[in-house]
Amino acid sequence: MATRAYGVTAADQAFTAMDIVRRAPGPRDVQIDIAFCGICHSDLHTARGEWPGTVYPCVPGHEIVGHVSAIGDAVKGFRVGDAVGVGCLVDSCGQCGSCDDGLEQYCERGWTGTYNSPIADPPGHTLGGYSQQIVVDEGFVLHIRHPREQLAEVAPLLCAGITTYSPLRHWGAGPGKKVGIVGVGGLGHMGIQIAHAMGAHVVAFTTSDSKLTEARALGADEVVNSRDSAQMQAHAGSFDFILNTVAAPHVLDAYTALLKRDATLCLVGVPASPHPSPSVMPLIFSRKAIAGSLIGGIAETQEMLDFCARHGIVAKIERVRAQEIDRAYARMLASDVKYRFVIDGSSM
Amino acid sequence: MATRAYGVTAADQAFTAMDIVRRAPGPRDVQIDIAFCGICHSDLHTARGEWPGTVYPCVPGHEIVGHVSAIGDAVKGFRVGDAVGVGCLVDSCGQCGSCDDGLEQYCERGWTGTYNSPIADPPGHTLGGYSQQIVVDEGFVLHIRHPREQLAEVAPLLCAGITTYSPLRHWGAGPGKKVGIVGVGGLGHMGIQIAHAMGAHVVAFTTSDSKLTEARALGADEVVNSRDSAQMQAHAGSFDFILNTVAAPHVLDAYTALLKRDATLCLVGVPASPHPSPSVMPLIFSRKAIAGSLIGGIAETQEMLDFCARHGIVAKIERVRAQEIDRAYARMLASDVKYRFVIDGSSM
Repeated sequence: MATRAYGVTAADQAFTAMDIVRRAPGPRDVQIDIAFCGICHSDLHTARGEWPGTVYPCVPGHEIVGHVSAIGDAVKGFRVGDAVGVGCLVDSCGQCGSCDDGLEQYCERGWTGTYNSPIADPPGHTLGGYSQQIVVDEGFVLHIRHPREQLAEVAPLLCAGITTYSPLRHWGAGPGKKVGIVGVGGLGHMGIQIAHAMGAHVVAFTTSDSKLTEARALGADEVVNSRDSAQMQAHAGSFDFILNTVAAPHVLDAYTALLKRDATLCLVGVPASPHPSPSVMPLIFSRKAIAGSLIGGIAETQEMLDFCARHGIVAKIERVRAQEIDRAYARMLASDVKYRFVIDGSSM
Repeated sequence: MATRAYGVTAADQAFTAMDIVRRAPGPRDVQIDIAFCGICHSDLHTARGEWPGTVYPCVPGHEIVGHVSAIGDAVKGFRVGDAVGVGCLVDSCGQCGSCDDGLEQYCERGWTGTYNSPIADPPGHTLGGYSQQIVVDEGFVLHIRHPREQLAEVAPLLCAGITTYSPLRHWGAGPGKKVGIVGVGGLGHMGIQIAHAMGAHVVAFTTSDSKLTEARALGADEVVNSRDSAQMQAHAGSFDFILNTVAAPHVLDAYTALLKRDATLCLVGVPASPHPSPSVMPLIFSRKAIAGSLIGGIAETQEMLDFCARHGIVAKIERVRAQEIDRAYARMLASDVKYRFVIDGSSM
């Protein structure tokens, strides 16, 4: 089944329209007409070969929302017409300890990413959501229960939403807890909303004074300019958890100093070059930790979507046409986006 | 009350005998005749001014064992003649959350160290266990229930023992758990014995082939030469917890790679210069953590001493005379000690 997509044929090429092939739905498959697909920074890194291992043609996109257009005979959880989403994963081994625990994102044999992962279907690797249709095992398809008119705004929840929800939940964000969100961007603007809805006292950290008001509007109880050492010092030793969404290399000690005893600074971004080596002193002298977290499992992603639907949480987005992807990438690199670009599938 | 001690009057001076003054025991004080005092690497850093803030004269020593020679009127837990120990702490605020939780080592107002901490007694800072007597609030004195002939071998438990016991217990070392101990030295040789007695499967890491057999004799189920990448690779992703006792700067990624999902690498040594910046990838891709831990609280130190007494665990030591402290320091710097020097108080 041929479908229209936008992809790149090499690291230095612009996006172009191309026809790709999707498999006919097997018994457990759900065929989805893609309505919108968010643009994640990972898409750019992969398309441009900035991470090792990109195979071309490359069709990125793992913040996919749309409607079911066909289902296999054995599909039980979905019907034609359902509003659905697909995130970063389309398969995992299903047999390891992590899969058993519903943590497919930590599959010990390696999960299958929505794009750029080996697969039997042509061309031998997965092709993502910058396309009109996709066919996915129902075990990796999510129900979307937001109002239908919010569908475009829901797309970024499939990556940016779950990437922040999962660590906030794992480390116990909730009433009585003081939680920091570092960075008010695609990830951070989701983290602020989610942590606030979980009932935590939320402090947003930004280097941009222009985002102070916006961060408050998103639900931050306090906003700190992280370049102001007096503001930072005022929060020393007071956080139960800090979620750091900033991938650019920076001094982590500024945040470990703000943690309480036994608290964790969680990183979700991989810097292109290493952060300055974090000081061991605050870790030892208050039994603090620096940890990481990767997206979330399928069950938790559904839980996140339902949580966001209940609390009226969506991403703040700017819709773009498929022909504008390169320009959107350039603006993303210039931090000129509030807070996520979403490709309108009807422009394909 | 004058007592004989060995200390230094400046960072570049050798140890000399000196008379210091101990306060007369107050109502809650325990006066201890010191039988033995272990030599910890922290003693050297402090005496030689390698860490900021050393005040002179400096009398180090926080692995103290001896017998009660007098008690204050209000002392309830100790009698004259009891075998007792004093570790790294002699006071804390007693009012903060950490003190309430029995974690005096994380006292939020700053605990009082056994040496080099401000105190009302002359000369205005605490003087440690390289001395014949010490007077300590009973809340910071520990009972020693090992056979009396083991008293010298018990001394290092007060710092090296609790520094390893506390994180092993906090992170759940026990039956069914695979635990790594990095470094087979003063701390590591305690960690191996304690983790083994807790019932864990213990893997010791060393760069010294000469320690392979000794590590097994201490209780390691397996010993890995950490310079052998094939040996290291064979353990990838398999550890529930790794306790890293090595303070010299080294590549932490070698150990985060060996952790299971959700597992922790705990550091207990502060390097003189930073470790190479740890890679964020293994933290994110398996929700791993790098954490720290500092000695232990008073209740936990008593628990550790009783645990070690029950399991017959003591340190392997070499006794030295007070006049040999400088030489012991030189040998410690050359790693020429198996595994802890202990000063014989009778040589004072």
